Amino acid sequence: MATTLADLEARLTAMEHIAAIKELQSRYWHNVDRQKLDDVRNCFVEIGAVIDMQGVPPCNDREDFIKVLKANGGKPGFHSLHTGNNPFITLTGPDTAYGVWDAFFIGIDVGDRLTYQLSGEYKNNYVLKDDRWYIQTQRFLQTSLLVQSIAEDGSPKVVTFGLPDDSVFDK
Amino acid sequence: MATTLADLEARLTAMEHIAAIKELQSRYWHNVDRQKLDDVRNCFVEIGAVIDMQGVPPCNDREDFIKVLKANGGKPGFHSLHTGNNPFITLTGPDTAYGVWDAFFIGIDVGDRLTYQLSGEYKNNYVLKDDRWYIQTQRFLQTSLLVQSIAEDGSPKVVTFGLPDDSVFDK
Amino acid sequence: MATTLADLEARLTAMEHIAAIKELQSRYWHNVDRQKLDDVRNCFVEIGAVIDMQGVPPCNDREDFIKVLKANGGKPGFHSLHTGNNPFITLTGPDTAYGVWDAFFIGIDVGDRLTYQLSGEYKNNYVLKDDRWYIQTQRFLQTSLLVQSIAEDGSPKVVTFGLPDDSVFDK
Repeated sequence: MATTLADLEARLTAMEHIAAIKELQSRYWHNVDRQKLDDVRNCFVEIGAVIDMQGVPPCNDREDFIKVLKANGGKPGFHSLHTGNNPFITLTGPDTAYGVWDAFFIGIDVGDRLTYQLSGEYKNNYVLKDDRWYIQTQRFLQTSLLVQSIAEDGSPKVVTFGLPDDSVFDK
Repeated sequence: MATTLADLEARLTAMEHIAAIKELQSRYWHNVDRQKLDDVRNCFVEIGAVIDMQGVPPCNDREDFIKVLKANGGKPGFHSLHTGNNPFITLTGPDTAYGVWDAFFIGIDVGDRLTYQLSGEYKNNYVLKDDRWYIQTQRFLQTSLLVQSIAEDGSPKVVTFGLPDDSVFDK
Repeated sequence: MATTLADLEARLTAMEHIAAIKELQSRYWHNVDRQKLDDVRNCFVEIGAVIDMQGVPPCNDREDFIKVLKANGGKPGFHSLHTGNNPFITLTGPDTAYGVWDAFFIGIDVGDRLTYQLSGEYKNNYVLKDDRWYIQTQRFLQTSLLVQSIAEDGSPKVVTFGLPDDSVFDK
């Protein structure tokens, strides 16, 4: 059966949506690292966003999440990088999508002389409203964690190692 | 010369193939990190997959590779992340493709108190069968390696450093 | 209003351009890590490329930049990986584009027994000439830095930590 213009447009639109969702999620990480909270807020749906992340109090609204970020972030001398990897974005309807990402995180806390290396996975739901994609649900689980403290002479010491359910965690 | 519907479809199909290959390779890494061996198996062609990876016994069939992964993986308290970066995917025929990736790997072995940081490159051949892409050949070379052991008091010590052809390797 | 073939082609061409720009930037990082300087040179416009990167003398031509790389790179036993993350590519005209990337870098200097972990952001301008994209301007700022020296017995010590404007930098 011959391809039609409408077929091609549907396929192209699907690719554009997936690209827009990847950019949305990247924008979230990019702005969280810079404590740009207005830009973070705008990544989530206005009402009823669910943010359920290991290590973070659960939030049922983007404003709650922004409050958590405000209370915990923006520390002088704290530098971080989130990277999103191995993305799998699936369009689940005309205006809904689901995404799985492997995330890598490094953080350096100069004030408290700590370094962080974290990996985890995001399993997020996205929704299209007025031609823009938003995060509807953000779920995060850690898959590895390594925290080191740096003594005055520069000597590092591992203070957290593995995952909470490893028996030697925090040894 | 005016573009035709057939021209556009060919260009769109090429982009869809490249996206599918990226997702295939990401699925491999995502599932290797979780020791989901059925999902790993399904990334490779059923017969005659060549897996030639530095640090891994060479395999000429996906079942051999799965046996290697089964024998070496799934250790309790071992946590890892593979990320695929800087992808270059080239369609080399109607149902074949070649890909080069820079990979980054971190591993934490809580039981043996070791941490790993590895980089390397994958040069893979992909094949399309019944509308699905598979890995036909997977070649991996290390480009850097750093292994540390963590003493009981948390003090790290570098035990492997550089690459096998550096003279100070394993100092 | 019905979509036309010309509309679809314009949308598809935009996606192809963005994919080509991502591949160009990845090619830059991939080849810098391998000190493949001819391939690095070919990523930049022939005349008037501006390279303004924190920690690197500013260059107003790709040949100047290649000289800097030649003078500082290619050290035996130096192994590195650059990864490009969270890309935002915007087409700003028929033959111009702007891109923001979060970059992650690890380096291992076996000779001087140093390890590097760096993050930063690239804000680059791209230009299309004869159907190929080139980097016109490359601006890089560090967002975190961690350098460790490795003693003969393998003990690491943090020698640089944070960013130049943190008061404890180089403690």
